Amino acid sequence: MPMAASAAITSSAIHSPERRVDPPKHLHPFDRATFVTADAEGVWQAHTSDDYWNMNGPFGGVTAATLLNVAVQSVAADLEPVSLTVNFCAPMAAGPLTIRCHETRSGKWVTHLQLNMASADGRTVATASVVMARRTETMSHLCAAPPAAAGPDELAPMPDDARFRWLQQYEFRFARGALRLEAGAQTPEGNAASTLWVRHREPRPLDWLSLAALCDIFFLRIFHLRNALVLAGTVSMTAHFHADQSALRCQLDRPVLGCADALVFSRNFFDQRAQLWSDDGHLLATSTQVAWFAE
Amino acid sequence: MPMAASAAITSSAIHSPERRVDPPKHLHPFDRATFVTADAEGVWQAHTSDDYWNMNGPFGGVTAATLLNVAVQSVAADLEPVSLTVNFCAPMAAGPLTIRCHETRSGKWVTHLQLNMASADGRTVATASVVMARRTETMSHLCAAPPAAAGPDELAPMPDDARFRWLQQYEFRFARGALRLEAGAQTPEGNAASTLWVRHREPRPLDWLSLAALCDIFFLRIFHLRNALVLAGTVSMTAHFHADQSALRCQLDRPVLGCADALVFSRNFFDQRAQLWSDDGHLLATSTQVAWFAE
Repeated sequence: MPMAASAAITSSAIHSPERRVDPPKHLHPFDRATFVTADAEGVWQAHTSDDYWNMNGPFGGVTAATLLNVAVQSVAADLEPVSLTVNFCAPMAAGPLTIRCHETRSGKWVTHLQLNMASADGRTVATASVVMARRTETMSHLCAAPPAAAGPDELAPMPDDARFRWLQQYEFRFARGALRLEAGAQTPEGNAASTLWVRHREPRPLDWLSLAALCDIFFLRIFHLRNALVLAGTVSMTAHFHADQSALRCQLDRPVLGCADALVFSRNFFDQRAQLWSDDGHLLATSTQVAWFAE
Repeated sequence: MPMAASAAITSSAIHSPERRVDPPKHLHPFDRATFVTADAEGVWQAHTSDDYWNMNGPFGGVTAATLLNVAVQSVAADLEPVSLTVNFCAPMAAGPLTIRCHETRSGKWVTHLQLNMASADGRTVATASVVMARRTETMSHLCAAPPAAAGPDELAPMPDDARFRWLQQYEFRFARGALRLEAGAQTPEGNAASTLWVRHREPRPLDWLSLAALCDIFFLRIFHLRNALVLAGTVSMTAHFHADQSALRCQLDRPVLGCADALVFSRNFFDQRAQLWSDDGHLLATSTQVAWFAE
């Protein structure tokens, strides 16, 4: 096999999709945004979503969920996502996306997948690795506790901001550390922690895909630290899924409790880490990410 | 281009290395363990290390550092590692390893790499994605503080355990949450947190590779929770690098302060997250991982 072909993920040259199916109009906006259609073996078609547009590209959570959608549909139905790492490689323009999915290794319990998302010009815009597993009942133990927060009904929803279309798809109710862009100064405490309730504005039951998107729902911590929108973007996000099917199902469309903070900002990068809890105290998912900032 | 070749990472068929160079005998054991030699374009040769053998395979930190070594050597010298995700796909036998490295996307500031590590039979045993960046001076802010701990000289080193050869390569001094296998019962607190000082037993200055290995130095949290060795193993680890060159250089071979905990154990998997601090209060790296356990 020639070396170039065997080396690693390639997005291949420009790919002409053999068939593309538009998402049915009756679907929830999130399901339209993350809709994928099988094209050839291991090749899927998707499209960026205007509904979830951020300032300069798609909301990263939808990109992550779209990649996870391909992974979930590429394996047996009894496998659940355990870990998802998405690397955001390049700015994404609006348009069609081609996703290639390769099963790296599959055992009785665990399957490893690698995915590549390319824009219409054939260039890679994101990659992902996904661990899927056939999970069984075992000893279970929760070391953490959900963050303290008033109930969602006691908190006012965050006002809309027309600059971010994706924001309008969710309802945010901050319990702590709301983003205050009008303040325009570093927070007195010098931290970037926040706690909030979040759900789809148009009701939709929680599932793996919406949970994956929620892992990226937290505003970039540098906006919180500086009370300003600065040039910044996520470079890599890793989500770990802890929910079981029944915790997911029981949550329905009620708000999920999330908290996020950052540990350090230094030399163009900062980290952030987040937890997502069901409203009855199950830890559904955790995520970490590293993001770039300009100055 | 045929679909199979363009799809994604493949480890290719069995690969006959064109040249293999044994690591020089005078090198530190860690540098011998993570030694790689360039083979063909984008293809590197390595070998598992007896010195860093764990119970049933290599110490994962050395696998991570070996992959990072290829990444670092594949890009311009002024790029530093920002993020590393390693997926441990299959049990690894002792023997030669072939690593393929592919540059997914490269911009002025950030380069994304995908790596595949295969054993002698051509099967993938691990994959990695790496973000490397050209970092500049920016605003910096530390939100976190190092964990409280007595100095390393005030703490006794952990005794050797002949079952784990890799343990003998490091010197561990627990300040909190030492592994107590003789206790054989769940810790009273029901948590799995620990704080320790750690360094190479044979002195070696800290660098990116040893820092990557240290991200996996923390015993699996389920051993701490249950005070027992149970069947378990890391499935995916993500490390974020925050150190700058001067913090790395200043640390030399003195012990690094680490802390780790877990949030939840459920249905065959648990998470763990860790921080590594220099002895003068710089956050060097953070990591998260998800690990499998049997029961």
